[in-house]
Amino acid sequence: MMHCCACIMVAQTSLPVYLDETESIEERIGDILSRMTLEEKVDMIHAQSKFSTKGCPRLGIPELWMSDGPHGVRMEIAWDSWKHAGWTNDSCTAFPALTCLAATFNPELAWKYGKAVGEEARFRKKDVLLGPGVNIYRVPLNGRNFEYMGEDPYLASRMVVPYIQGVQSNGVAACLKHFALNNQESNRKQVNVEVSDRALREIYLPAFKAGVEEGKVWMVMGAYNKFRGKFCSHHEFLLQKILKGEWQFDGVVVTDWGSAHDTREAALYGLDMEMGTGTDGLTKNTPLAYQDYYLAKPYLKMLRSGELPLSSLDDKVKRVLRLCLRTNMDRRRPYGSLATQEHADIARQIAEEGIVLLKNDNHFFPIKRGKYKKIAVIGQNAVRSLTVGGGSSELKAKKEIFPLEGLMSIYGKKNIYFSMGYTSGPSKFHPQLPAVDKADSLRYAAIALAKDADIVLFFGGLNKNYKQDCEGVDRTSYGLPYGQDQLIREILKVNKNVAVVLISGNAVSMPWIDDIPAVVQSWYLGSESGNAMGKVIAGDVNPSGKLPFSIPVRLEDNGACSFGASSYPGDGTNVYYKEDILVGYRWHDTQKIPALFPFGHGLSYTEFAYGELKTDKKIYDKDENIVLSLKLTNRGKCGGAESVQIYAGQSHPSVLRPIKELKAFKKVFLLPGESKNVTFSIPAKELAFYDEISKMWIVESDCFTFFCGASSTDIHDTVSVNIR
Amino acid sequence: MMHCCACIMVAQTSLPVYLDETESIEERIGDILSRMTLEEKVDMIHAQSKFSTKGCPRLGIPELWMSDGPHGVRMEIAWDSWKHAGWTNDSCTAFPALTCLAATFNPELAWKYGKAVGEEARFRKKDVLLGPGVNIYRVPLNGRNFEYMGEDPYLASRMVVPYIQGVQSNGVAACLKHFALNNQESNRKQVNVEVSDRALREIYLPAFKAGVEEGKVWMVMGAYNKFRGKFCSHHEFLLQKILKGEWQFDGVVVTDWGSAHDTREAALYGLDMEMGTGTDGLTKNTPLAYQDYYLAKPYLKMLRSGELPLSSLDDKVKRVLRLCLRTNMDRRRPYGSLATQEHADIARQIAEEGIVLLKNDNHFFPIKRGKYKKIAVIGQNAVRSLTVGGGSSELKAKKEIFPLEGLMSIYGKKNIYFSMGYTSGPSKFHPQLPAVDKADSLRYAAIALAKDADIVLFFGGLNKNYKQDCEGVDRTSYGLPYGQDQLIREILKVNKNVAVVLISGNAVSMPWIDDIPAVVQSWYLGSESGNAMGKVIAGDVNPSGKLPFSIPVRLEDNGACSFGASSYPGDGTNVYYKEDILVGYRWHDTQKIPALFPFGHGLSYTEFAYGELKTDKKIYDKDENIVLSLKLTNRGKCGGAESVQIYAGQSHPSVLRPIKELKAFKKVFLLPGESKNVTFSIPAKELAFYDEISKMWIVESDCFTFFCGASSTDIHDTVSVNIR
Repeated sequence: MMHCCACIMVAQTSLPVYLDETESIEERIGDILSRMTLEEKVDMIHAQSKFSTKGCPRLGIPELWMSDGPHGVRMEIAWDSWKHAGWTNDSCTAFPALTCLAATFNPELAWKYGKAVGEEARFRKKDVLLGPGVNIYRVPLNGRNFEYMGEDPYLASRMVVPYIQGVQSNGVAACLKHFALNNQESNRKQVNVEVSDRALREIYLPAFKAGVEEGKVWMVMGAYNKFRGKFCSHHEFLLQKILKGEWQFDGVVVTDWGSAHDTREAALYGLDMEMGTGTDGLTKNTPLAYQDYYLAKPYLKMLRSGELPLSSLDDKVKRVLRLCLRTNMDRRRPYGSLATQEHADIARQIAEEGIVLLKNDNHFFPIKRGKYKKIAVIGQNAVRSLTVGGGSSELKAKKEIFPLEGLMSIYGKKNIYFSMGYTSGPSKFHPQLPAVDKADSLRYAAIALAKDADIVLFFGGLNKNYKQDCEGVDRTSYGLPYGQDQLIREILKVNKNVAVVLISGNAVSMPWIDDIPAVVQSWYLGSESGNAMGKVIAGDVNPSGKLPFSIPVRLEDNGACSFGASSYPGDGTNVYYKEDILVGYRWHDTQKIPALFPFGHGLSYTEFAYGELKTDKKIYDKDENIVLSLKLTNRGKCGGAESVQIYAGQSHPSVLRPIKELKAFKKVFLLPGESKNVTFSIPAKELAFYDEISKMWIVESDCFTFFCGASSTDIHDTVSVNIR
Repeated sequence: MMHCCACIMVAQTSLPVYLDETESIEERIGDILSRMTLEEKVDMIHAQSKFSTKGCPRLGIPELWMSDGPHGVRMEIAWDSWKHAGWTNDSCTAFPALTCLAATFNPELAWKYGKAVGEEARFRKKDVLLGPGVNIYRVPLNGRNFEYMGEDPYLASRMVVPYIQGVQSNGVAACLKHFALNNQESNRKQVNVEVSDRALREIYLPAFKAGVEEGKVWMVMGAYNKFRGKFCSHHEFLLQKILKGEWQFDGVVVTDWGSAHDTREAALYGLDMEMGTGTDGLTKNTPLAYQDYYLAKPYLKMLRSGELPLSSLDDKVKRVLRLCLRTNMDRRRPYGSLATQEHADIARQIAEEGIVLLKNDNHFFPIKRGKYKKIAVIGQNAVRSLTVGGGSSELKAKKEIFPLEGLMSIYGKKNIYFSMGYTSGPSKFHPQLPAVDKADSLRYAAIALAKDADIVLFFGGLNKNYKQDCEGVDRTSYGLPYGQDQLIREILKVNKNVAVVLISGNAVSMPWIDDIPAVVQSWYLGSESGNAMGKVIAGDVNPSGKLPFSIPVRLEDNGACSFGASSYPGDGTNVYYKEDILVGYRWHDTQKIPALFPFGHGLSYTEFAYGELKTDKKIYDKDENIVLSLKLTNRGKCGGAESVQIYAGQSHPSVLRPIKELKAFKKVFLLPGESKNVTFSIPAKELAFYDEISKMWIVESDCFTFFCGASSTDIHDTVSVNIR
């Protein structure tokens, strides 16, 4: 028959190099580039919608789709505004906030987290997950600290690397953010950060460096703020010299949404992709068309006129193409999955390991089943959704178990009595403090309940309202909001058997601390929040979280906040990082200002005995590793995990150095009575400081002391060595 | 160092069978099925949104995304309504309507068409393109004929197979529609079709059968209408017995949007996926929730109670999984491309080969450049977008060149004078006939222009307004709308040098035909409309299109319309196909009612000489092939293509048979003076009729005559053979 002709027409044409998977990625990139027109190239480096770029439809280079993270894959956003798209396929697993992940001190969980959230992004057809964030926790008021990994660059580094690797194992790019020095939300789009080279290198950049060099992250997001007078999203020093030069970053630098400000700077100073410019419906009435972006027509015009070199464009496009070949053109990438039980289990495990037992006088916790007949649960955070609100990290969680539900399922509904005690406004709006009479009535009801209860569990803290733990602006005071301090005091007047569970992503003051026998620092725990908290409270899970930041007694005990407004939140134009390298526990230690609860602190229901800290030698060359070891024993009656922390300090540095800095940690699980030998190997070069004159990392020949502890202040042993 | 741990955790777990590409598709399907819960299975077989299904998020079975076709990939539709989503990445190539494709008589172009439109679907991340349609053109009023491939089952079969293969070469499913007997739009959601088994088998099903058996189509869409009292979308006889039984269809049967009516029937009678039920915003105020679909919770309930067997569900889910493995889980599928020049070229080539020159007295066409100084172009279709409107086949075309633009670029702007002449309402609404004075003023202006012109090119026909060539309801009269007939007559009073170009997807009456020297039947040609028409008019392209349907003189000359309302459009409940097998030219031929322009008709600028038609033998067994040949010569002065048509008729059939039926065709391109030997090989079994008593295809031992012609009436030679 004449018409069986389709088969003839399928005759193989030779595969172009860019589609030939036996060719190297760089060959394929070069081949695509050689086929593209100038206009097509420019079209690839800016938004076509709120969260996507155009790709190259002619050549079959797919669109790139991004989603906010980092705690889950954000619900679908409208094509061209910040509205929710109203889809119904985007209910996700809400994972614990990154503060909680950091508090686990468990990099293995970071990998599981990344892999799982990456699977959800992949199922949702997202090529980029816009996270994780590793801006250093500088002040406890920063509205976005909950999205980051605490105050210590070493801890953040060790946690961010496996998170990135986990995400990217799905053929989904992680996007390390916000590069750099986005340490506050107040005035974030204009503020100019002034910080020393040394603090930059020692405190603010290491987690980014690790994410790039070890995590091999495929995308980095520029910050909104300025640094030394220039916007970070097209910053020659940060992006060209450090990120792409020193660290050899080969991925894409994307703006934060709307963080580009100039075509020439964007073209020349390291920005590769522009998103969100002027299309932020919150601030502008007449959004720019995407073709009017700095890296769209204005760039095209300057390329055509020769004002800007074509090489600047080709480099950006190559990076975007590299990202495509790593993600949406990688045929081997898995299919992903969404809101699975496995992901819920991972979320719960992270939550369980991240909850920090701050104080536990007289074995207040755990509370055995049946011990109390009337357990009063007081506080809005026992029943409040904390996966919505907070800004771009908002989620449409498939489920969210509240603390009240978790407690009910453990202790039985009939033994749990709830009273809200206080209230706040709805998420995402200015908190409407309740009218006095309403606040009073809530408080009275709670106190009446507390009076009759066998025990009171107060669930308070912050929430994700505007000016709480929320993107866009910082918290305005260090105390608990919504009258919680007063409420706690009044409860104490009628019942002394009170524990406080703080849910927050930031430190808060605790003026009632001496009168409260037990305090738990919990976090935005996501889908499994109530289950994890219930298990810790009941002792089904032995808490093992450690604070990833210091909790100062007073706000002014925080280094950044001790120098007045010019140091934080800035003078309206600049913010001067006057505490310099002395961030967090480095400040408390060195200035001898004790924190209320120090970095690394976290109690257990069991007791760990630390043996002698030993090194393999006493004298090391600068290229050697110092091997440390100690014996850790569980002396208590239940199994549990301890995060053993190794800090180091230099005896006679030629520059100011912190008393000690975290150099290693290891989370060890021990059965009752069990002992393990715990070893650490620390390269001597990790003892360096950044020398601002030579612009090099220098290890001085000196005596160094290693501190082994259960926190940054609970030091069990030390050992000194000489570096020659 | 202790923390380089991610690599350890990536340890390979053994690949489940369903992800192991070395396993057979059926093994993989079985493995997935064994892992799914009852609820997950049910979730896979109904909509989650207007155009997507849920997949299985737990197991990583992706969502299935569909888009309307068949002339291009429809613009993005909102999640949960028929509104356009307002995206800006969905401008596509508008390909010519399928009537035009059929008119090319060129299956190679069908493959190119399918491949190209499939590439666009793939780039747009659509897993299914909802087309092609192969409902037989029964009456010239059917609002959707423009989406189908004409009146002849053989022609439609030969064109649909490569189209499907082309689409599916992209890992995008074609969806053959609307199965079956959806031959009118009027009352389409209720009408019950009564037709003989023989007409069903010989006329209405062959193109579906070819699409399934030869095209290996992956999806079939059920029709809205009923057949013999049962809805086609869960029709035991059509779906279970014929499609899945006799034809061994292994893909998915999907509803038309909202064509399911009963859970039990849907479960048992062959439907696999339910879309659009009750969520058609056009007809309902309170759309059903997706969970209320017939194949959602109600089905789940009946499965749980044992009222319906689990095997019914498993079969559906297997089919959906098979579709996934063929499309969105096929790692090898290409990336697609969108609105490329290559696609525009294909669209133009199809348009050029599909335009039919109906009449060309005194070599009116082609019109050489420079011959006329003042060319009057009159008629709204010279400037009207015909890619929008018409129903689900509407498109957001990246470009659409109008006829006026095409003519201007060929003859020069200064030689072209345009006057609209008549107007219609906007697309998609009831046509608002212009007030008399406005219509008059348009007509007067056109006539004034015509009076002074050297030549008049009238661009009229139908458009895609409601009650024209548009989904949902049929045209109400056979004549041209909007006063065009009157306008043409008035133009003829002032200028005899007038050609009419009809743009439509249906036949229209031509009361002015004797006074118009040249008539072109054009189609909805898509993006390259004006370019293709300009080239044909100027002679840059020699027309070679052939009518895929008959154009009767009067509506009642059409078989279906000759029996009164009960035969078309039906009596309100039923429509009886009283013309039976005598559809289209079969009617005109057999009843000796000449068409104005017969099926297969189409002139050329050159002249073809047909040599003697020969067979290789005179007597054949029933399992042999009849090989026919003739010599075709181009006797004219320009190159051109002729679609040589072979019809066959039986001399003394035991049942009524049409005088002749199309059995083969071949499109042959010849340079001036060139000759080619054209051969055909027709299996004797293709001469069968469907015997309603034995329910078998029977070839009777008899004399059969083969007719070789340039149309169904322009027969150049015949040859008779005996089948024994």
